[in-house]
Amino acid sequence: MKTFMDKDFMLYNETAKHLFHDYAEALPIIDYHCHLSPQEIYEDRRYNNIAEVWLGGKNPEGGYFGDHYKWRLMRSNGVPEEKVTGDADAYDKFVEFAKTLEMSIGNPMYHWSNLELKKYFGIDEALTEDNAKEIWDKTSDMLKNDKDLTTRGIIRKSNVKFIGTTDDPTDDLKWHELLAKEDLGFKVCPSFRPDKAINITKPGFKEYIIKLANSVGKDTLSSASEVCDALSKRFDHFKAHGCKATDHGLDYVMFRPCSPEEADNVFKKAMEGKEITKEEAEKYQTALLLHLARKYHKENVVMEIHFSCSRNVNERMLKLEGPDTGYDMIAKSNCYDELAAFFSELDKTGELPKTIVFSLDHNDFNQIATCLGAFQSSEVPGKMQLGAAWWFLDSRDGMEEQMKSLGNLGILGNFVGMLTDSRSFLSYTRHDYFRRIACNLIGKWVEDGEYPDNEKALKKIIEGISYCNAARYFGIE
Amino acid sequence: MKTFMDKDFMLYNETAKHLFHDYAEALPIIDYHCHLSPQEIYEDRRYNNIAEVWLGGKNPEGGYFGDHYKWRLMRSNGVPEEKVTGDADAYDKFVEFAKTLEMSIGNPMYHWSNLELKKYFGIDEALTEDNAKEIWDKTSDMLKNDKDLTTRGIIRKSNVKFIGTTDDPTDDLKWHELLAKEDLGFKVCPSFRPDKAINITKPGFKEYIIKLANSVGKDTLSSASEVCDALSKRFDHFKAHGCKATDHGLDYVMFRPCSPEEADNVFKKAMEGKEITKEEAEKYQTALLLHLARKYHKENVVMEIHFSCSRNVNERMLKLEGPDTGYDMIAKSNCYDELAAFFSELDKTGELPKTIVFSLDHNDFNQIATCLGAFQSSEVPGKMQLGAAWWFLDSRDGMEEQMKSLGNLGILGNFVGMLTDSRSFLSYTRHDYFRRIACNLIGKWVEDGEYPDNEKALKKIIEGISYCNAARYFGIE
Amino acid sequence: MKTFMDKDFMLYNETAKHLFHDYAEALPIIDYHCHLSPQEIYEDRRYNNIAEVWLGGKNPEGGYFGDHYKWRLMRSNGVPEEKVTGDADAYDKFVEFAKTLEMSIGNPMYHWSNLELKKYFGIDEALTEDNAKEIWDKTSDMLKNDKDLTTRGIIRKSNVKFIGTTDDPTDDLKWHELLAKEDLGFKVCPSFRPDKAINITKPGFKEYIIKLANSVGKDTLSSASEVCDALSKRFDHFKAHGCKATDHGLDYVMFRPCSPEEADNVFKKAMEGKEITKEEAEKYQTALLLHLARKYHKENVVMEIHFSCSRNVNERMLKLEGPDTGYDMIAKSNCYDELAAFFSELDKTGELPKTIVFSLDHNDFNQIATCLGAFQSSEVPGKMQLGAAWWFLDSRDGMEEQMKSLGNLGILGNFVGMLTDSRSFLSYTRHDYFRRIACNLIGKWVEDGEYPDNEKALKKIIEGISYCNAARYFGIE
Repeated sequence: MKTFMDKDFMLYNETAKHLFHDYAEALPIIDYHCHLSPQEIYEDRRYNNIAEVWLGGKNPEGGYFGDHYKWRLMRSNGVPEEKVTGDADAYDKFVEFAKTLEMSIGNPMYHWSNLELKKYFGIDEALTEDNAKEIWDKTSDMLKNDKDLTTRGIIRKSNVKFIGTTDDPTDDLKWHELLAKEDLGFKVCPSFRPDKAINITKPGFKEYIIKLANSVGKDTLSSASEVCDALSKRFDHFKAHGCKATDHGLDYVMFRPCSPEEADNVFKKAMEGKEITKEEAEKYQTALLLHLARKYHKENVVMEIHFSCSRNVNERMLKLEGPDTGYDMIAKSNCYDELAAFFSELDKTGELPKTIVFSLDHNDFNQIATCLGAFQSSEVPGKMQLGAAWWFLDSRDGMEEQMKSLGNLGILGNFVGMLTDSRSFLSYTRHDYFRRIACNLIGKWVEDGEYPDNEKALKKIIEGISYCNAARYFGIE
Repeated sequence: MKTFMDKDFMLYNETAKHLFHDYAEALPIIDYHCHLSPQEIYEDRRYNNIAEVWLGGKNPEGGYFGDHYKWRLMRSNGVPEEKVTGDADAYDKFVEFAKTLEMSIGNPMYHWSNLELKKYFGIDEALTEDNAKEIWDKTSDMLKNDKDLTTRGIIRKSNVKFIGTTDDPTDDLKWHELLAKEDLGFKVCPSFRPDKAINITKPGFKEYIIKLANSVGKDTLSSASEVCDALSKRFDHFKAHGCKATDHGLDYVMFRPCSPEEADNVFKKAMEGKEITKEEAEKYQTALLLHLARKYHKENVVMEIHFSCSRNVNERMLKLEGPDTGYDMIAKSNCYDELAAFFSELDKTGELPKTIVFSLDHNDFNQIATCLGAFQSSEVPGKMQLGAAWWFLDSRDGMEEQMKSLGNLGILGNFVGMLTDSRSFLSYTRHDYFRRIACNLIGKWVEDGEYPDNEKALKKIIEGISYCNAARYFGIE
Repeated sequence: MKTFMDKDFMLYNETAKHLFHDYAEALPIIDYHCHLSPQEIYEDRRYNNIAEVWLGGKNPEGGYFGDHYKWRLMRSNGVPEEKVTGDADAYDKFVEFAKTLEMSIGNPMYHWSNLELKKYFGIDEALTEDNAKEIWDKTSDMLKNDKDLTTRGIIRKSNVKFIGTTDDPTDDLKWHELLAKEDLGFKVCPSFRPDKAINITKPGFKEYIIKLANSVGKDTLSSASEVCDALSKRFDHFKAHGCKATDHGLDYVMFRPCSPEEADNVFKKAMEGKEITKEEAEKYQTALLLHLARKYHKENVVMEIHFSCSRNVNERMLKLEGPDTGYDMIAKSNCYDELAAFFSELDKTGELPKTIVFSLDHNDFNQIATCLGAFQSSEVPGKMQLGAAWWFLDSRDGMEEQMKSLGNLGILGNFVGMLTDSRSFLSYTRHDYFRRIACNLIGKWVEDGEYPDNEKALKKIIEGISYCNAARYFGIE
């Protein structure tokens, strides 16, 4: 029996151990997509206890902070909401989480949480109800006193080189500006996420457009083209602050090209508060996405597209707790003709940007991989990327399926690898987890005689997937 | 080489063997969903030969009895219908089945059948054409004479504690009543399956409604609300006879809420023999499902929902042999928005019952698991359950995929586990098969250092999945 | 560590090695579906170098020849089109391919290419950038001089017994006629692929109909029924030349039965250049497919149906390079009700032909397998076949998934096995690859005690899947 979570965790063959320990393990992290707060990095925040980091709770100014992955799991274990996001004592919540975790065999959360205890707190034992008190005391003490356990300390201890936060186009990037002046030992750059300007049918659209107008010194915007212009200006601002990537969270990928006039008309109807059809919405959205993609291509910045998610499906809890509180689900998509048509339209004029496509539906990996394979080019190896297993798929099974799909249908050696997509500063162990799984998969192929024991090629592939490909792709020195 | 189907069948590591033999193996069976005949249990029926149990044939009163899984397989091997469901000699049919089985490497039927020979007849050798005669003679003799090989004998030998049969709301539950008075050593309770009242577009709807009316002492029912009332009354009758679960077999999950008047109108049209649209049908169906789910919640009885099946797709054979004769197929569904909306509607008023969702499409496991994760609550751990791999998925691959999906996206430790869904009294080996596969999966994680060798936690998880979770969930003492 | 690609490549247990080396390896190949040129076989063509065989290039008479699987991969590695399909030096292209291959760990192309170097050129080392020159020289020399490296030589060296090419109904089969007179040591027969007569909405339909008319001595065809008659006549011509199989490449399976008059009307509209609706097109297509399937049944020839592919999705490259140049992708289908209805309609009158169904979407394997299971019959074991993992799925993962799906839901022992679907004469190693994977899967089940070590049954199953089932199914002596 292998020891639980020892140094060779997830490494089941000698080549895997060699590849991980000799190549992957020591490489820095490029976390090109996450939801960390630049303010908290700037302020070098400290936490009072592990419940605060892991489980969070209500924000004083409204809303919730914390890890909704963990909340979901606790609810699945029958924990009352009081002890999930509610006003219960932080320690009591932690004990409930410990009890939940013990039952969660086979869940990536089991591994992530225990890896975090190990890496940041030096705790080798898995968390259980029985040792919850002891672990609570130790972690509380360390969080209050250990110099490595401020936000910056954690980032440095994690060997992070680059952090791409997720930011609204209207953001003034004040905290990024302040961070840029510090000698941090790592870089923090904004990523451009203009979802609110695209979600023309969602509540708050009109208010957002005014906010966007204000951010470019106007009172309002009066056409789709003006929205495009405003976004371009804001993008320039982001670019000036080191932006390397953009992000689009879509329910699905639409492609319904229209004339500029049509897009303007739809926009005006929306601004007048009139009902617009799905078809009309798609016209406006296609116009914006085409405009933005062209801009990204021109500026050589990566476009990320995330989709296949239904958000906030529990109406009662949405009213009680708001969005991002753990009530989302995987959605089916059938939008691959549209995805291909979108790429084709951009490619026609040589304006297709480097793009990473993430779907929440693992069934679609093969389809996406083959779609991307029809739009590769000599701009950069692996210009079109099948994104790493994301959110609900971010597990060993999800990662292996994504890497096998990419391996079978594209070039695994050009994969830009992992991101945390996380709100938590302790989540960098997910890069470690990913690298172990990648080394194990590749190591097994070598051990099985399916790929030669070619040290030079293997080193290049492993270093590429762990770090070098992302550095090349995003242009991070 | 491991010996074929020995005591460690399907157990590939030491922890798996320990978990199975020391915890799972001896636990009683809760078979919360099957299609056994309460009459046959009451009458303690005997069989003349193995072909009668396995392959059945024509009922004297019309229709067919027997295992359509086996019929399908024989047809795939080119066996003429005469020797499948026809009038051929029972022994000749059995020989054809033996020949078929030999070619069916990798089919769960291969394992189930040979496990049944082993467990109930003490036959260690796999069935082949060559030993068919010998096995025929031995099993015939035992079926006629062995006291453990009546229906009740088989159930007791299988260590079954609870059987949930599947019954129409109009059933008077006469056999259940008689069984309740016997000292059986196990419990047999009815499950409520009101599909015929919901299938408003299927032939025979009107006749069924009159039958339902009669079962509550009326001549007919004149509105959707009266159908709801009648079903509630019949449900009370079931509840009084120990009903712990209900079952809904849907083509897909619909959600089209409407006013009571609208539902009534649709119902009246249907009763008048008028054509109704799909949309109209969905309104009536949604009204009934909401009513029933609320009733189940109030009565603390579990709701089961089965879907993603196209039935009777071979028209010629449907005419010749009728339904349930082996001409069904997996269907694609895209009804997860509706499923979530249905749960959300019920959850809004605190009336969402404990629910188990079964899909025939393994591609949907992740989607269902994440949908259910948005509706968990503190009523019971694992209130919303991803159902065990069902029917066409009831194989090692299907079970492992279901457990991995649940493990990755929910809490495997709270899983209520296996059911037979079977028409055959010998099918209890499927619980044995399932437990072996579950112990092997979990044992491997422990051996690999992915979960600690924590005896207490592992015992709780294995006993939970094998027996205790179902006992808690269904309220079986 | 296992040696790279040694004699036990892909064979991970002793039973697998025994089954492969003692049964599968030496059996001849029935390649019942490929895209080889009968002319090139007749002319016993030689190649100048490995780039010509593997990478091809522009045809002097327009269009491209070569392996678009390899082109896609090179583009994914950032190789400029000049060195993919362009005018660059053949050796330079080969070096780019070598560099690409090195990064393509986990891609079946890695295995196929190196297996081809091993089998046909005796090269044991994997191709890399470093040894590209040496391998270039050796293979060039052999291609020019080795008697086994003409097209016929390769086929004989590969132990091929039967080749089914893919031919248009209007083909005069001149080359097949010439080949039939030669003492080849193998058979080359045409397969009937009438896609162009069915694709009523695609450009060139009218021209094609005239060509078809000419092939039966007419000026034009004036109704759908005349198209049917013409195709039947051409089919008779194919049958007279040994045709054993037909092939239909569909975007999806449609089923919209209509009267002969309706089909005629649609046809006339199309011939007059009028726009026809999707529904109209489906009526015509259904009429043709039903007609053809009945003809195939009557003539006892196998019907193959391929679908779930979107072709030429990159508009810019379609204009530049035309079709079949590596810009296709997997498409989602939801046409299984139609597939079942199509089979049901044919089965009603006893006119359903032996059919093999191939989908590019691996998610659909289970659905297809259960659909086919509803239409098996005693005409031949495994009358309805789940086709081998095809095109983008033609990898170890794809093959294993297909065989597990078939194993779980049908009878793996009746599987007709592999085809190359290839344009290259070196692709026969794919049969070797497939047999290794099949032997490994089955061997593992035996080693694990899941199927008995029954030599007789295993021999029958392995020889069946490798060769005998296809011989029986297609009627090849």
